[in-house]
Amino acid sequence: MVDKAEIFDKLKSIVGEENASMDEAVLRVYSYDVSPYKGRPDFVVRPGTPEEIAEIVKLANQYKIPVIPRGAGSGAAGGAVPVNGGIVIELTRLNRILEIDTANLQVVVEPGVVHATLNKELAKLGYFFPVDPGSTDMATIGGLISNGGSGMRSVKYGVTRDYVMQLEIVLPSGEIVTVGSKAPKSASGYDLPRLFVGAEGTLGIITKARLKILPMPQAKALVLAAFDDLEKAGNAVVNTFAAGIVPSGLEILDRSALEAVKTYRPNLDIPIVEALLLFEVDGTPAGIREEAARIEEVCKNTGAVKVDIATSKERFDELWAARAVVGAATTALNPDCTRVYEAEDITVPITNVPKILLKIREIGKKYGMNIVTFGHIGSGNLHPALVINVLDDDEWDKLWKVSEEIQTAALEMGGTTTGEHGIGIARARFMEAEHGKAMELMRVIKKALDPNNIMNPGKMAL
Amino acid sequence: MVDKAEIFDKLKSIVGEENASMDEAVLRVYSYDVSPYKGRPDFVVRPGTPEEIAEIVKLANQYKIPVIPRGAGSGAAGGAVPVNGGIVIELTRLNRILEIDTANLQVVVEPGVVHATLNKELAKLGYFFPVDPGSTDMATIGGLISNGGSGMRSVKYGVTRDYVMQLEIVLPSGEIVTVGSKAPKSASGYDLPRLFVGAEGTLGIITKARLKILPMPQAKALVLAAFDDLEKAGNAVVNTFAAGIVPSGLEILDRSALEAVKTYRPNLDIPIVEALLLFEVDGTPAGIREEAARIEEVCKNTGAVKVDIATSKERFDELWAARAVVGAATTALNPDCTRVYEAEDITVPITNVPKILLKIREIGKKYGMNIVTFGHIGSGNLHPALVINVLDDDEWDKLWKVSEEIQTAALEMGGTTTGEHGIGIARARFMEAEHGKAMELMRVIKKALDPNNIMNPGKMAL
Repeated sequence: MVDKAEIFDKLKSIVGEENASMDEAVLRVYSYDVSPYKGRPDFVVRPGTPEEIAEIVKLANQYKIPVIPRGAGSGAAGGAVPVNGGIVIELTRLNRILEIDTANLQVVVEPGVVHATLNKELAKLGYFFPVDPGSTDMATIGGLISNGGSGMRSVKYGVTRDYVMQLEIVLPSGEIVTVGSKAPKSASGYDLPRLFVGAEGTLGIITKARLKILPMPQAKALVLAAFDDLEKAGNAVVNTFAAGIVPSGLEILDRSALEAVKTYRPNLDIPIVEALLLFEVDGTPAGIREEAARIEEVCKNTGAVKVDIATSKERFDELWAARAVVGAATTALNPDCTRVYEAEDITVPITNVPKILLKIREIGKKYGMNIVTFGHIGSGNLHPALVINVLDDDEWDKLWKVSEEIQTAALEMGGTTTGEHGIGIARARFMEAEHGKAMELMRVIKKALDPNNIMNPGKMAL
Repeated sequence: MVDKAEIFDKLKSIVGEENASMDEAVLRVYSYDVSPYKGRPDFVVRPGTPEEIAEIVKLANQYKIPVIPRGAGSGAAGGAVPVNGGIVIELTRLNRILEIDTANLQVVVEPGVVHATLNKELAKLGYFFPVDPGSTDMATIGGLISNGGSGMRSVKYGVTRDYVMQLEIVLPSGEIVTVGSKAPKSASGYDLPRLFVGAEGTLGIITKARLKILPMPQAKALVLAAFDDLEKAGNAVVNTFAAGIVPSGLEILDRSALEAVKTYRPNLDIPIVEALLLFEVDGTPAGIREEAARIEEVCKNTGAVKVDIATSKERFDELWAARAVVGAATTALNPDCTRVYEAEDITVPITNVPKILLKIREIGKKYGMNIVTFGHIGSGNLHPALVINVLDDDEWDKLWKVSEEIQTAALEMGGTTTGEHGIGIARARFMEAEHGKAMELMRVIKKALDPNNIMNPGKMAL
């Protein structure tokens, strides 16, 4: 048996008294994230430097204690939940933007920098980091990278991994290593940076990230298209791409989402239809006018009952607000219920979006759950909001069944259980079904890099 | 000692008599690629299915014989050269486009499909695979993926790894495994597809690839800007991005390249200046006019001596032709010399491009070599063309010195020895200097996946 007091003393000597805790109340705070899962840590530390993190990991490796890296704790899959106890390493003190090099289109940040903070600083200079998670005001860059996050703009701008140039990593051995390159492109050696993107802290801890940035587009416009039929909305998406247009965002609110938003914000001028598509285009002023007009034409030809183009900032912001509040609005239709993050991140090939939306309605009807669905149709990524009375055990039974059926349907339609939130604990049970023999490859890599299995164990079915 | 005749019999029984050879002339053909390196294989096989490849790899693993996957042999780094003998597996019989799914923006191809063939098929439907290597008419998709290739459009469209959704791989054990997803985005598990991108066949053999495609842009324009100063050309690149424009291509021809092109094609209407920038923009007709006008303004403000906008197809094609022939033109200035592919793929942060161009001139002067330099300035990727009289041993000495100095300079400027051609044998000696401790991580991965080191051994300094 390991002497906990002895380890705690060592941890305190590494990070300082004020940055280490075994206090019951503190441990409880770090037992959760946004998911319904929990697990009690033995220690919580808040290191201030990569070197301190390296010392902590060395200690953990020596005693074979789990290490759980944690950013803002805004993850929805239980990735930062210490299911096997151990040391939670909170990374929010490493929150400096170390370098902004606009001429070379890159920045260097510490993992604890909040996503919105980075984009606020970049906006002052006319640049942006294109990945745009809904949790921008909370999520840290380290968490975003570790969970392979993305957001609404992935249709045109891709996902986090496309922007990671170089990472500094504390390996499970406690060694600090830099992977990747400052060069805008590189074909030199294995693609190590991307091995750590989406690895959820199971292979090492990110202590620095060099990210690609882009100049802000000169102008944006929004096209709203209302459809009385889901299939037609799906076709409009396909036809828009076929017309040579790649929108910067392409969102869908189905009837359930529109009703929720309308209940939550009655003054918002949005139609209640089977499906509302929001197309965001960006580029030059004349370019976006042309693209918006073309999208309008495509949508009308595909059976839209109403199309609306917003170029004024006011209307643009009002319409995006409808999309932004939908998460919060999901419980508006069910005031005594709480949203539980389960099956909330399925992704299917674009042409299967109408089919899975109907399937979700069918599952909701079967179990008597009013499921609100919205998401990034342009990348096939949907966020069904499962809501239950969390004080009722029977409701939990229902939740697990609904979750199972929705995620199984996504896999059957050639999709994945997670487009941008990660696997963590929440989706681990689907890994074998999704990846088959490739799971063995993941396990071989995990074992080679972390032979003592100290790095965030119990996650991703590894 | 292994009985070669016995192995040859087994190989023949797997792929058929007509697809296996130990003939000296055949072995000689497979001893080379475009690089100056060579190595004699023991066997050459041309399998027709992934299952045959799996059988060959199992046999190789049993006898611990090297396996060297080969596409068109158009690689410039010696990646397909069998330095330790063994079985060359030529993949060009696997040359089918298995699926074109425009609605879901994806295709499935076998590794032996030639890049240009894929894009010809897609063009008929109004789509394209945006990665555009200069070797499009030769290079196979499998080679492109394995070498982490890219091309002129990477500024806007990224590199090969950004388009790889799913791969079927024959692992070193001979097992066939599928990694990745059909979903447009996924945060599920380790990013296995990208582990095989750029791995140069050292971790497995790609037998199928699902790739993302995009709709063809509606229109394109080209802006030519001539500068009497390299520094100003570099600034024009930075200022163009700063103006919110991300060109689809951004190429540079320096004085040496312009002179070579002019000697090779005297009728081409191009100026002889210190640096010529070619900006390609794509999008909607009005959008590209606006962008081209803005680039013209930026270039003039940054000191361009002449700016020319081409929107007509004729002028557009003529100007791109100047860029396309520069490789062939490199020996025009030195008719008794041959181009040797060494130090031909350096990449540095964009702002260091003028500096390294000057450095290359200085090195050329020092060694009395007329080095022609051109490349993708928008991604910092330059292709210096080293030319020598290959029949003269002293000239080879000179070549190695020039290569060493250019590549060392690239590393010192925060760059890499290869932006898109790969490491192979050619750049293996720089791996430690470039990656430091990260090399150990690459070796751990290699050893975990290929414990008998049969997959393309002797490459990438692994």
